[in-house]
Amino acid sequence: MFVLFTDFGVHGPYLGQMKAVLLRDAPGVPIVELFSDVPAFDAVAGAYLLPAYAPDFPAGSIFLCVVDPGVGTATRRPVVVQADGRWYVGPDNGLFDVLAQRAAAVRRWEITWRPERLSASFHGRDLFAPVAAILARGETPEMREQPWGEGELAEWPSDLPLILYVDHYGNAITGLRASALPEEAVLVVAGRRLPAARTFGAAAPGAPFWYSNANGLVEVAVRSAHAARVLGLKVGDSVSWEVPE
Amino acid sequence: MFVLFTDFGVHGPYLGQMKAVLLRDAPGVPIVELFSDVPAFDAVAGAYLLPAYAPDFPAGSIFLCVVDPGVGTATRRPVVVQADGRWYVGPDNGLFDVLAQRAAAVRRWEITWRPERLSASFHGRDLFAPVAAILARGETPEMREQPWGEGELAEWPSDLPLILYVDHYGNAITGLRASALPEEAVLVVAGRRLPAARTFGAAAPGAPFWYSNANGLVEVAVRSAHAARVLGLKVGDSVSWEVPE
Amino acid sequence: MFVLFTDFGVHGPYLGQMKAVLLRDAPGVPIVELFSDVPAFDAVAGAYLLPAYAPDFPAGSIFLCVVDPGVGTATRRPVVVQADGRWYVGPDNGLFDVLAQRAAAVRRWEITWRPERLSASFHGRDLFAPVAAILARGETPEMREQPWGEGELAEWPSDLPLILYVDHYGNAITGLRASALPEEAVLVVAGRRLPAARTFGAAAPGAPFWYSNANGLVEVAVRSAHAARVLGLKVGDSVSWEVPE
Repeated sequence: MFVLFTDFGVHGPYLGQMKAVLLRDAPGVPIVELFSDVPAFDAVAGAYLLPAYAPDFPAGSIFLCVVDPGVGTATRRPVVVQADGRWYVGPDNGLFDVLAQRAAAVRRWEITWRPERLSASFHGRDLFAPVAAILARGETPEMREQPWGEGELAEWPSDLPLILYVDHYGNAITGLRASALPEEAVLVVAGRRLPAARTFGAAAPGAPFWYSNANGLVEVAVRSAHAARVLGLKVGDSVSWEVPE
Repeated sequence: MFVLFTDFGVHGPYLGQMKAVLLRDAPGVPIVELFSDVPAFDAVAGAYLLPAYAPDFPAGSIFLCVVDPGVGTATRRPVVVQADGRWYVGPDNGLFDVLAQRAAAVRRWEITWRPERLSASFHGRDLFAPVAAILARGETPEMREQPWGEGELAEWPSDLPLILYVDHYGNAITGLRASALPEEAVLVVAGRRLPAARTFGAAAPGAPFWYSNANGLVEVAVRSAHAARVLGLKVGDSVSWEVPE
Repeated sequence: MFVLFTDFGVHGPYLGQMKAVLLRDAPGVPIVELFSDVPAFDAVAGAYLLPAYAPDFPAGSIFLCVVDPGVGTATRRPVVVQADGRWYVGPDNGLFDVLAQRAAAVRRWEITWRPERLSASFHGRDLFAPVAAILARGETPEMREQPWGEGELAEWPSDLPLILYVDHYGNAITGLRASALPEEAVLVVAGRRLPAARTFGAAAPGAPFWYSNANGLVEVAVRSAHAARVLGLKVGDSVSWEVPE
């Protein structure tokens, strides 16, 4: 299965153009959009969202990951990553670094294959999608192994105390894994101190709380209300936590 | 065919996560999103939209319906409903009650099957999607019949005189079936009295009107303009109607 | 493959209802959404976007094109167009005229086939989708050839100096093909004079520029910023160009 992870937005032609390439080059392989609205140009947000959501997809899945502000520049290289049995195709701008840091087994290759027509601005369509399709057919694109440099991955913090995404309900998803916090931790965000709740049903109506979301990330919510609006939260806001005495 | 009917929004990972489960457990069955933006947490709006749009889908279709503000609470139970040859999977919070009220033949079961991993907040992925896939494979999940209580369905009004949904064009869809009104009825909404028109082409430019939409619901529109903005309408606003003398 | 090109928006039931018909009448044929948010009611914007994006799809693709403000009126007729090996189904309101003007080979037929149930407002579901499915099955719907009138297509300007679409990143796509401008042309928009850049990486941060987008259209952008917001651009704004001395 192809899994799309992009900052393209759900509007406009880009997702459809990329899907047309996948359908042409690897017909019959299902395509699922995981995230189409990673914060625009924000490979760091993507880097922490990807490893939290990737485990929902079976081994052998091929992730097509395009958060690519450096498209068309010489220093940004196209890569294939294999981590814990899943494949990832996209730019080497950090998007796969947290995934690699956490993986039990990981390899990376620079893609040296080039299409006949390569636009300057849409490598998702012209380079990454064809390479994903080659992998889906069980073939190997032209590429050469390129491991991460020594210590390179260790520079990334293991969790990121920022709001990475605000969902449709207004819940604010952070880059903190709930497993990094004690269950009784108080989350500090936008000058507020929020208690933990196990579920929405356990929270008092109107009272903000944090909980471990269905993918193990710390998420800020208000029962049946739009937490980001109620609390004035946005992507990039800092969070921290304390353990009450 | 799977039909998704949710308040997840079109953004974010939730639709994709649910589709991944369907593709894993029932590969090859097509998936169609009907509504992904039922008003958030609003099972009542969903209850009146679902039976208006469900008949567009063939017998045997399996609807995965997740408008589920009570997820993770003890009183909200997961159910399977079979109505007029179609299957529905989702919470028993009223979402299927109008459908059942109008159906010629209807049965309901409480789902007693549980997955190995059940998150507290995302039963769409962990419980409802796997059960929908079991049904799609022609198998029966663990469940026990649970009919509606006597008189329970009769408490729902047969039509709901509220705006339930504002579409992309700005048209306001109500919970009134057009068959409940005389053709010459005048619709009263936001202090305005609107005449009926059979089609957009039959309406005068700029003049608001109501018409029977392609699914038989009373809908408020303005030709080539955004009716909700022009008239100041929003989800939840009341409508009524009069017959001119 | 079916390619959807509509102004339905990504919200609401309309795309799903149309897909259900395609899946019922032509099962197994993949469906891709190209544009779901052509500016509402704007067949002219659609007319210039369609031929720029259609070549991304293989010969034999069937485009289902619904930008149809005249639905249900007597003067607007449903048509099938065959242009350069691709099929198009939709209204004859100009949506296919620029495509036809540019095509090496083009034919048009008026659809005379009618379904048993034809709503007054949703021909995408009731008429165009069934006809697209008939074509996909290799059959011919009832239709009669109806070429464009002499000189009719010549009335359309070959390029349209307007902003047609603002994408998720804030880039403003125009109806000008970059091939119509010298590479050193300066684009004039919203009182600003913008230089050309080959890629985003070649542009100075914060400095607006124009470039030839991945489909050959002139597009206005700001590196890693929302050009439409920065420059105050919206759909319908005029653009012009000059060649510096």
